[in-house]
Amino acid sequence: MNMVCLDLEGVLVPEIWIEFSKAAGIPELSRTTRDEPDYDKLMKFRIEILKNNNLKLPDIQKVISGMEPLPGAVEFANSVREKTQLVILSDTFEQFAKPLMKKLSYPTLFCNSIIADKDGTIIDYALRQPDGKKEAIKAFKSMKMRIFAAGDSFNDLAMIREADAGCLFCAPEQIRKDCSDLTCVDTYKDLLAKINTFLD
Amino acid sequence: MNMVCLDLEGVLVPEIWIEFSKAAGIPELSRTTRDEPDYDKLMKFRIEILKNNNLKLPDIQKVISGMEPLPGAVEFANSVREKTQLVILSDTFEQFAKPLMKKLSYPTLFCNSIIADKDGTIIDYALRQPDGKKEAIKAFKSMKMRIFAAGDSFNDLAMIREADAGCLFCAPEQIRKDCSDLTCVDTYKDLLAKINTFLD
Repeated sequence: MNMVCLDLEGVLVPEIWIEFSKAAGIPELSRTTRDEPDYDKLMKFRIEILKNNNLKLPDIQKVISGMEPLPGAVEFANSVREKTQLVILSDTFEQFAKPLMKKLSYPTLFCNSIIADKDGTIIDYALRQPDGKKEAIKAFKSMKMRIFAAGDSFNDLAMIREADAGCLFCAPEQIRKDCSDLTCVDTYKDLLAKINTFLD
Repeated sequence: MNMVCLDLEGVLVPEIWIEFSKAAGIPELSRTTRDEPDYDKLMKFRIEILKNNNLKLPDIQKVISGMEPLPGAVEFANSVREKTQLVILSDTFEQFAKPLMKKLSYPTLFCNSIIADKDGTIIDYALRQPDGKKEAIKAFKSMKMRIFAAGDSFNDLAMIREADAGCLFCAPEQIRKDCSDLTCVDTYKDLLAKINTFLD
């Protein structure tokens, strides 16, 4: 049995922190792992800024609710689901992704979680597991699934390489250069063609 | 991160072989594992009958296309997907389930596969893996998911018991009797209440 595993941000929806940073007018929140490679340090920094700006989980979800999937993403995801099983493997937080998942008709999502207190103040985050995307592919393989994976970022490489087949999608120039063993496609049409070849 | 794993037939959709048997007017096809406990023998028997009646995969899919999810199943599945991740674990075949999955807005489905030749004649079947439902729960646990599972049949018991929590749904009297350690609920409202308690 076949399945497709896709990264979320940059593949089906915009980068959530960057869009949220713009919408909330807080440029510091656009800081990413490219600026601060220590993910835990970066998240603590983000949580501190949210606290200082009195931004709670419902405020963030409200801003994210105004975001839309990337143009063509809904139709693309629907096409994949008509053909095979689709699971989203993401490093985002389930509470952030929710309004966007609704717009994608709730594909299955494995990701991380935000820890908020009763009044919605974000106090911490919980990784599902270290190397979550790669471990998910390993788990699906233990279920005898045959997997095609695609993503756009450094954190997608282990997932793509662990899968039976896969490619990069709209990856930044540096990743294309560093990973010349992986094909990179730049449109949903081309990505769907890759998936169709895998399924045939 | 939480998820719900559900059996398909008898939980969200009717028993496919029984409905197909009625629609096609072939009573022998309603034979189940209750009549023939050897699953492989049962499937070979079914494939032989299909061949004798010149019924090919597209004919079967056409009949299944006329079936509907159980009353209330669409709304129930949507409610679950608004709250958490839903994965269907089924012993059906992906090619059979497809028209019904469309009516359920394509939740992720892990099941078995029919092997048909180019003209659609069913020649064999392929199990995803032995003990597929239980192994799937184990794999999700290796992904650090916290799982609620529900089903109606003997082949769901290992799945329910392997999960963090779960219950029977509309199970036959014999199973309720044999598994008095498991709660059995009989409405989507009660099943959703169980799931909500698990998620809280």
